[in-house]
Amino acid sequence: MPYFDTASAAPLHPVARQALQAALDEGWADPARLYREGRRARLLLDAAREAAAEAVGCRADELVFTPSGTHAVHAGVAGALAGRRRVGGHLVVSAVEHSSVLHAAEAHAAAGGTVTEVPVDRFGAVSPVEYASSLSSTTALACLQSANHEVGTVQPVAEVAGLCAEAGVPLLVDAAQSLGWGPVEGPWSVLTASAHKWGGPPGVGLLAVRKGVRFAPQGPADERESGRSPGFGNLPAVVAAAASLRAVRAEADAEAARLRVLVDRIRRRVARLVPDVEVVGHADRRLPHLVTFSCLYVDGETLLHELDRAGWSVSSGSSCTSSTLTPSHVLRAMGVLSEGNVRVSLPRGTTAEEVNGFLEVLPRAVAGVRAELGVPDAVPSVPPVAESMEVDALGLRCPQPVIELARAIVSVPVGGTVTVLSDDEVARLDIPAWCAMRGHTYLGETPHGDAVAYRVRRAV
Amino acid sequence: MPYFDTASAAPLHPVARQALQAALDEGWADPARLYREGRRARLLLDAAREAAAEAVGCRADELVFTPSGTHAVHAGVAGALAGRRRVGGHLVVSAVEHSSVLHAAEAHAAAGGTVTEVPVDRFGAVSPVEYASSLSSTTALACLQSANHEVGTVQPVAEVAGLCAEAGVPLLVDAAQSLGWGPVEGPWSVLTASAHKWGGPPGVGLLAVRKGVRFAPQGPADERESGRSPGFGNLPAVVAAAASLRAVRAEADAEAARLRVLVDRIRRRVARLVPDVEVVGHADRRLPHLVTFSCLYVDGETLLHELDRAGWSVSSGSSCTSSTLTPSHVLRAMGVLSEGNVRVSLPRGTTAEEVNGFLEVLPRAVAGVRAELGVPDAVPSVPPVAESMEVDALGLRCPQPVIELARAIVSVPVGGTVTVLSDDEVARLDIPAWCAMRGHTYLGETPHGDAVAYRVRRAV
Repeated sequence: MPYFDTASAAPLHPVARQALQAALDEGWADPARLYREGRRARLLLDAAREAAAEAVGCRADELVFTPSGTHAVHAGVAGALAGRRRVGGHLVVSAVEHSSVLHAAEAHAAAGGTVTEVPVDRFGAVSPVEYASSLSSTTALACLQSANHEVGTVQPVAEVAGLCAEAGVPLLVDAAQSLGWGPVEGPWSVLTASAHKWGGPPGVGLLAVRKGVRFAPQGPADERESGRSPGFGNLPAVVAAAASLRAVRAEADAEAARLRVLVDRIRRRVARLVPDVEVVGHADRRLPHLVTFSCLYVDGETLLHELDRAGWSVSSGSSCTSSTLTPSHVLRAMGVLSEGNVRVSLPRGTTAEEVNGFLEVLPRAVAGVRAELGVPDAVPSVPPVAESMEVDALGLRCPQPVIELARAIVSVPVGGTVTVLSDDEVARLDIPAWCAMRGHTYLGETPHGDAVAYRVRRAV
Repeated sequence: MPYFDTASAAPLHPVARQALQAALDEGWADPARLYREGRRARLLLDAAREAAAEAVGCRADELVFTPSGTHAVHAGVAGALAGRRRVGGHLVVSAVEHSSVLHAAEAHAAAGGTVTEVPVDRFGAVSPVEYASSLSSTTALACLQSANHEVGTVQPVAEVAGLCAEAGVPLLVDAAQSLGWGPVEGPWSVLTASAHKWGGPPGVGLLAVRKGVRFAPQGPADERESGRSPGFGNLPAVVAAAASLRAVRAEADAEAARLRVLVDRIRRRVARLVPDVEVVGHADRRLPHLVTFSCLYVDGETLLHELDRAGWSVSSGSSCTSSTLTPSHVLRAMGVLSEGNVRVSLPRGTTAEEVNGFLEVLPRAVAGVRAELGVPDAVPSVPPVAESMEVDALGLRCPQPVIELARAIVSVPVGGTVTVLSDDEVARLDIPAWCAMRGHTYLGETPHGDAVAYRVRRAV
């Protein structure tokens, strides 16, 4: 059964499994102890650190192991901010960082710091010049992901790292999605990653802090891992993480080239096979294995269930699939459609047959969901009935407000306006996105009681 | 080769290994996802939580998994303190808590809080009445371990929990050393534990917070584990931890009875076979598998090396085996000898033959170290040469100052005094402890330049 959500978690790589087995026998003791079991554990830990540091492109004594990528980010952000407290309390992040970075930024703001979110373009990328312009004399730290976890867009990290270095600001790079594919280029200062994203076991993150970067670990003291990651280490998992990183790197170039072709095929075919679809993220500057698209007039959760029933496991940034019922902050920052959103991230070894099977199932699944929602195949061409009209979509949830808008727009002439009243938060993202897709003019929003009135001018 | 340091880390229990294997296949996906791999992971996680909660004696929704016992303690202390910030900033801990608790207390003090350390008796136990008297109207949290990790003494947790409940103060119990042997009795509010102490894998801690306890998780937000433990969970390890806890509990009573006999044997035989030894900790109110003793005139690190060469892996609280060159804070708080300290903690399944082998090797190892240090088998009985004398032990490290004192004491008559000048921090603990062991009178210390003068009156 094909699993197409490797950006969320990857099954254990065979090399990781082997290494884990061996390390369960040899590496269960405390590496700080002086007896033979402790010395053996210490040797394994040192070797794992050397291997991981080589893959990251840093010195072994610059790298520590944490219990997860999230722990690495939290510890990295807090330590780097505290290390430069005298410089100031300003933190710069991109608007499309992983939630672990944004939550660390929120905690910083709650503690009295200031945060600037650098916006992204429609593909999800920051502009290096715009990023650099957000740095100030009080900026303690800047954060930028190497590649986006939801749409796969690769950020201009080397350029941004260079500009940060010129400004004397350390750059923390969250390399969770890309480290399995290759090292991060450029003069970064702090780097974080997560082993279970590259086929290593869960329970291991990496935190690299370059020599010379001011860094003051926060929280209660602990002598392990250079004082940067408390708790008894998970040595068997650390050994497995390092071994699998080395293994996936050895095959990364060949596998990236192979998956890139499959993803290109999905990008092209989805746009052709599914009506009213928007493929998002950058077509070229992207991770090799990841593609995201959004389907108009589709309920994301229902679509995921349909695909799951047909045997395909994928992810979504739609609001209906989130516990908070808000759409993905990444799609929102890009200003692209979030309804009916599907993220496909191919595991290593995915075959062309599996991809073809998905492309066969997907259009049927989308059509099925639309039929259930009562979306006609094509909105009938009718004579306009009024210069302007108001659609009451109060109480309706995504994707209904957009469906109502699409039905209404043909009832006004070109140049006429439709006003949609909606209390669904997602409409704020999806109505403008629908206008951009359809070539209509989005006129803006005004408050309407507890709801919002969105105005659209028919342009075609 | 016998490994006698299970209080530090235990080899993986066979049940843990089996469960880990199975969960690596079934539990690698994100349990928050809606597709089949995610649902399977969620089922495993829910079942593990039920099993662990049953062993702890709490509701499943009161328990979360953390990456280590240390993480559980740090999160538990910080969350409970913040939850009762309005009550005040006073924290009570025993003087013999695990370093993770004491480091959390240091962090609290550094942030402006106040901390009271409740002293212990010569066996390492707190007095419930004394503990309760340290609580005040501004006490936000009290912490007490269930049993001590260095000397095995069991604390009167149920009594203290009752007194704390009467005072309206939540009690956090660090149950790391005891949870494999049985649940913690009494009305505790927060409980922490560590799976690798009971034969579970590393990478798993438990944090239980009773309903009704005010608790405000600190650090960046994260929706996983009820917001109390951030990061992608280590599900295979969690499954293995829960399965092995259930397994060790099933055999706990029988194994405890068996190991208790072996430890009693070590306690008796060590005192008989090794001259000048002090067995520390409580003889009865103790963990079944752990015993600690200190050997006069012995360098702890050298003794550990000798035992390791002979095939026995044990631990020590001597200053020379610590990276900070200070003796164990537990031995210090008990006021017992720290030099030549050895902690023996028997793994499940330890045989009488292994224990006998250790008891054969130990006296030879101690005698060998003493011979190397030039300690005579017995200090010769010589006529006193002066009413009082001064011993210059400046620059000498443990155990040399005590060896010099033992040599000098016979040179003064009963009633005469010896003054030892020492700049070794450990002398402050070991000279009074030596006096108590030998029946001499410790008169106190006075500053002497950068060093300290310790005065002893010969009494026998």
